[in-house]
Amino acid sequence: MPDTTSYAPSERTVPTRARERASYDRALVHAILDEGYVCHLGFVRDGAPVVLPTLYGRVGDRLYVHGSTGSRPLLMAGRSDPGLAVCLTVTHVDGLVLARSAFHHSINYRSVVVHGTAYEVVDEEERRTALDALVDHVVPGRSYDSRPANAKELAATAVIRLDLEEVSAKVRTGGPNDDPEDVSLPHWTGVVPLTRGYGAPVPASDLDPAVALPDYLTTL
Amino acid sequence: MPDTTSYAPSERTVPTRARERASYDRALVHAILDEGYVCHLGFVRDGAPVVLPTLYGRVGDRLYVHGSTGSRPLLMAGRSDPGLAVCLTVTHVDGLVLARSAFHHSINYRSVVVHGTAYEVVDEEERRTALDALVDHVVPGRSYDSRPANAKELAATAVIRLDLEEVSAKVRTGGPNDDPEDVSLPHWTGVVPLTRGYGAPVPASDLDPAVALPDYLTTL
Repeated sequence: MPDTTSYAPSERTVPTRARERASYDRALVHAILDEGYVCHLGFVRDGAPVVLPTLYGRVGDRLYVHGSTGSRPLLMAGRSDPGLAVCLTVTHVDGLVLARSAFHHSINYRSVVVHGTAYEVVDEEERRTALDALVDHVVPGRSYDSRPANAKELAATAVIRLDLEEVSAKVRTGGPNDDPEDVSLPHWTGVVPLTRGYGAPVPASDLDPAVALPDYLTTL
Repeated sequence: MPDTTSYAPSERTVPTRARERASYDRALVHAILDEGYVCHLGFVRDGAPVVLPTLYGRVGDRLYVHGSTGSRPLLMAGRSDPGLAVCLTVTHVDGLVLARSAFHHSINYRSVVVHGTAYEVVDEEERRTALDALVDHVVPGRSYDSRPANAKELAATAVIRLDLEEVSAKVRTGGPNDDPEDVSLPHWTGVVPLTRGYGAPVPASDLDPAVALPDYLTTL
């Protein structure tokens, strides 16, 4: 039986340094992906790297990215055979690590890096599932409370899929790692946590005041 | 006299879509860069894209990234002639944009994308300036309140530089852009702002209790 709790490490997903920070745990990878709003999608264009921020959605072990049928990476994935080589990265910054030495300053973070080939999704049912996942990634449940895409919108939207196969997480937690000989230095040392929160929802200017704030926004 | 308030657009920095969101304003580009903690650095390895999160620092129109002398992109930048082609991207997510239609869901964001060639910094004075900038990027002023790198640490650290020349910002603000025929739909519509904050600093377990929290951490 295949191991369903972890992804298999590959030459590209085993770091050359700080290997103790790397993880292939499926649940951890999914949790980091699900907490993000924007990924950084890398691809090669005319021999040079391009890194663009974009929305994404996850359905099991598949990631989806969408865009206009005229956008560059989506056009390239659709035209390339077999697909477009990509690297998709999601990072959360959790804290500022202040060591006594400049050298040991760091950041507490959680990141996921996915290597693979992105393919354009052409199956209509999978396209609809992917588009729902993209909306629900912004706010869980929102796809049930919005008008689904119509034929014209579907025709204008390209969806690409990247399977979670060659993937790893990397996590740094905890305090600074000062050298023993620096412990008596007079500098404050520790971690400043970074927090993320939600402000009060701002209704659109043309929203009918009779439309109440939905429950799924009061519990974000 | 050259235009010092804006960067010159290039084929790579003019988007194919949503051009009204693009900006080449130097002050805006710097402000977005200075507010971030982690950039996503893209480069090409064995023909495939790699996107890694990493710290960075800015000194005027130069960005600096550092790492172990054994890390892949830094090795590649040092060994490559002339340098390593990179794309460096910084993104802030400011709000969730909930439209009445699934199609018009979006994210309010501010991003900067830098295209260029990264070179290893070998001048010792520039290396020290860059390393101070990296520490001060985590907490402004911190380089004055920590032990500077010693010879051994300097020897273990590689620094690469990327000049801000081919660079653009992209910003989405404001509410949803629903189509007129959707305005009467019953769905709540508007923006949920995302906020970032700092938690109470957590002293390292071995910090002498007599060391007070510095002022620059109380005013973050």
